[in-house]
Amino acid sequence: MNQIPAEPRQNTAVPDIDLAARIFEELRLRTAASRGVTRASYGMGEQLAHDILKREAAKLDLSIQTDAACNLYMTLPGRGRGKPIYIGSHLDSVPLGGNFDGAAGVLLGLSVIAGFCSAGVVPPCDIVLVAIRAEESTWFGASYIGSRAAFGQLAAEELDDVLRAGDRSTLGAAIAAAGGDTASLRQGAAYLDPAAIGMFLEPHIEQGPVLLEQNLPIGIVTGIRGSFRYRHARCFGTYAHSGATGRSSRQDAVVAVSALVVRLNALWKDLDAEGEDMTVTIGQFNTDADEAAFSKVPGKVSFSLDLRSASPDTLARLRREVEARFQAIETEMGVRFEPGAPSGSTPARMHPGIVAGFENAARMLRVPTRIMPCGAGHDAAVFAQMGVPTGMVFIRNRNGSHNPDEHMEISDFAIAAEVVSALCLDPPQLSE
Amino acid sequence: MNQIPAEPRQNTAVPDIDLAARIFEELRLRTAASRGVTRASYGMGEQLAHDILKREAAKLDLSIQTDAACNLYMTLPGRGRGKPIYIGSHLDSVPLGGNFDGAAGVLLGLSVIAGFCSAGVVPPCDIVLVAIRAEESTWFGASYIGSRAAFGQLAAEELDDVLRAGDRSTLGAAIAAAGGDTASLRQGAAYLDPAAIGMFLEPHIEQGPVLLEQNLPIGIVTGIRGSFRYRHARCFGTYAHSGATGRSSRQDAVVAVSALVVRLNALWKDLDAEGEDMTVTIGQFNTDADEAAFSKVPGKVSFSLDLRSASPDTLARLRREVEARFQAIETEMGVRFEPGAPSGSTPARMHPGIVAGFENAARMLRVPTRIMPCGAGHDAAVFAQMGVPTGMVFIRNRNGSHNPDEHMEISDFAIAAEVVSALCLDPPQLSE
Repeated sequence: MNQIPAEPRQNTAVPDIDLAARIFEELRLRTAASRGVTRASYGMGEQLAHDILKREAAKLDLSIQTDAACNLYMTLPGRGRGKPIYIGSHLDSVPLGGNFDGAAGVLLGLSVIAGFCSAGVVPPCDIVLVAIRAEESTWFGASYIGSRAAFGQLAAEELDDVLRAGDRSTLGAAIAAAGGDTASLRQGAAYLDPAAIGMFLEPHIEQGPVLLEQNLPIGIVTGIRGSFRYRHARCFGTYAHSGATGRSSRQDAVVAVSALVVRLNALWKDLDAEGEDMTVTIGQFNTDADEAAFSKVPGKVSFSLDLRSASPDTLARLRREVEARFQAIETEMGVRFEPGAPSGSTPARMHPGIVAGFENAARMLRVPTRIMPCGAGHDAAVFAQMGVPTGMVFIRNRNGSHNPDEHMEISDFAIAAEVVSALCLDPPQLSE
Repeated sequence: MNQIPAEPRQNTAVPDIDLAARIFEELRLRTAASRGVTRASYGMGEQLAHDILKREAAKLDLSIQTDAACNLYMTLPGRGRGKPIYIGSHLDSVPLGGNFDGAAGVLLGLSVIAGFCSAGVVPPCDIVLVAIRAEESTWFGASYIGSRAAFGQLAAEELDDVLRAGDRSTLGAAIAAAGGDTASLRQGAAYLDPAAIGMFLEPHIEQGPVLLEQNLPIGIVTGIRGSFRYRHARCFGTYAHSGATGRSSRQDAVVAVSALVVRLNALWKDLDAEGEDMTVTIGQFNTDADEAAFSKVPGKVSFSLDLRSASPDTLARLRREVEARFQAIETEMGVRFEPGAPSGSTPARMHPGIVAGFENAARMLRVPTRIMPCGAGHDAAVFAQMGVPTGMVFIRNRNGSHNPDEHMEISDFAIAAEVVSALCLDPPQLSE
């Protein structure tokens, strides 16, 4: 006698995790740097990754397309019930980065589609696997180049003004070299129509330690923090002899920027206690390579400042707080801050219907999970801002990201793939 | 009727300031860098300066000698009453430095001797003009190379282990290229016998702003601050994603070293109030050029730490205070400090009899002056530590030193030269 299980598994197709594992290894070997991997935006490593994905999509008989910015779209046809579901992420990496940031999202989509193919399962709607270009802003100093271009949101000037770290190639030249259509991008032509996309799902390794600390394989993201940045701030003091210049005669740029760092961390501590969602990071802090010396009071410091919050109001408040501290320290210490051009991104909300859909799928699969905000920027933020219902699944990851030591267990990846697969086979009906 | 002046001028020979001004200009033109001057230790610029001095000494019929380290000694014979007075300083400069640091002391001695020669004045004792090599530690990362070598105090290993900034030439190769005798230096042979030197006088521009702020042309130095240094300290934290890593999960190397900077400055403020003589300088502070990014919590900072005091006890205390702060910050923030090899120099006391002699000469010449400590290291510290009665005169100087903007008025130089000239004609009788 057959018993009906108390909680039937709705997912009848098993994602092809072996395929994903093989491609992770191929990516790691073929884009290896002195440590970790380097897949420059519109560079050699990213192109290799796109070529590998195209090869695998062809093996699965997916329909393959690229847009003017060389983003790659690989479609498995469905039964035509509703708009297509897009799944994917980016394939570039930071210099000396890890193998999973970005690639995990694309390979997860691939493993889900391969699972449908080998099981002969036709999903309710088309599934479009997306490999996005140039997400990492370290290369061109600009965020979300590929996804913005797909929606016609790249400014024409960016093609000429933005230079790649390292070879100083313009963005336009780099896109053209990869086979893109810069004339079309200059006209702001959109390849993607937000209204024609049912939803966008971006699986991604978690870049913080929350899932690891809480012993959870996956997390479901509620929103993506926006940012406010001074990427090239400077503080000017006066060079002077270290032994011959007393306290009151100094305008010491290191003391000034150190005071800024300490005061902003004190502010963070206070706002944390008030429950504000935020991060404060001074990731770069450099005295002048030519002029500074151990025996000189330092007269110049270059530094970066990165503020993030899920709340636009908090971001605006942080900017005011930073500027007030610039002024206070200038007055106290006789230095001068030149913050340089600000940049940043707007916070983005994930679609509550997709969050609920992921929760539901996880519950059905008996996967413990957690609803959480996302601190890092992702292409999902662009899709959400364009009005596409968007969701993100986090995969547990050790040692953070953007470094060679990022470490994702393939068993956690498999759990995330099952949840995404389940959602694709039974997509939530979204209001709005 | 002749009247006897109430305060007779004892100095009957006027220093040749025009000569000094001409040589300053020749030095400036012939050792010009992109900004200021560059006279590398045992390099082209320093050699040019020595050649010019030798030429001028020959014109004055001085007896010219060099030692194994290419220090230059130019002697005007006196009447043989007492041991010779040595006057001088160094002729090298930091990269892109000013024209007066070092050179002013040598040219002041030259102008005094030239004044004696043209007035036909024979001083009581021999006057030895000294042009010392390689005082600036930026080139070989070691202090007082020339003066230590003159006293046989250079360690043989330094000839092989120490490399010049820029061309990475060993010290031994550089000395040999300048015509020195490295075999003799290796044996630790001394050229100078401290017991045979009556006194050493080093005139030097002030490297701080005290004389300028107090509107005084010259200062008389009581002692030279010693130093304690960590020139290549590092702090290790953990790189992490700036947006995805909360406060409590961070080990942020910039926050840790900034806290160190702020706490050491607070300590300085407190000890200043207690009357301790000291300076604290973090002249170099750098995140990693390859690994750091504006979007990463910084995992590594390299920094220098320079502590100075006229008191050996204060230096020892400061070292303990710094180490206590390393430990406290390590515990608080989960980072790790690697201070690297310490280096430094012992404080040196100027001879009270020479201080009194300068005071007396200044009073006779109606020159307002000030008794003050010296924060920077000088060859005078080596002479004092070798037991030579030593004195220093500071000349007012604008914009500090070790930079292209240092600025000494020739009229202040002339006043200092008159004081030194007066002391040479009527040397104090020194006890001890």
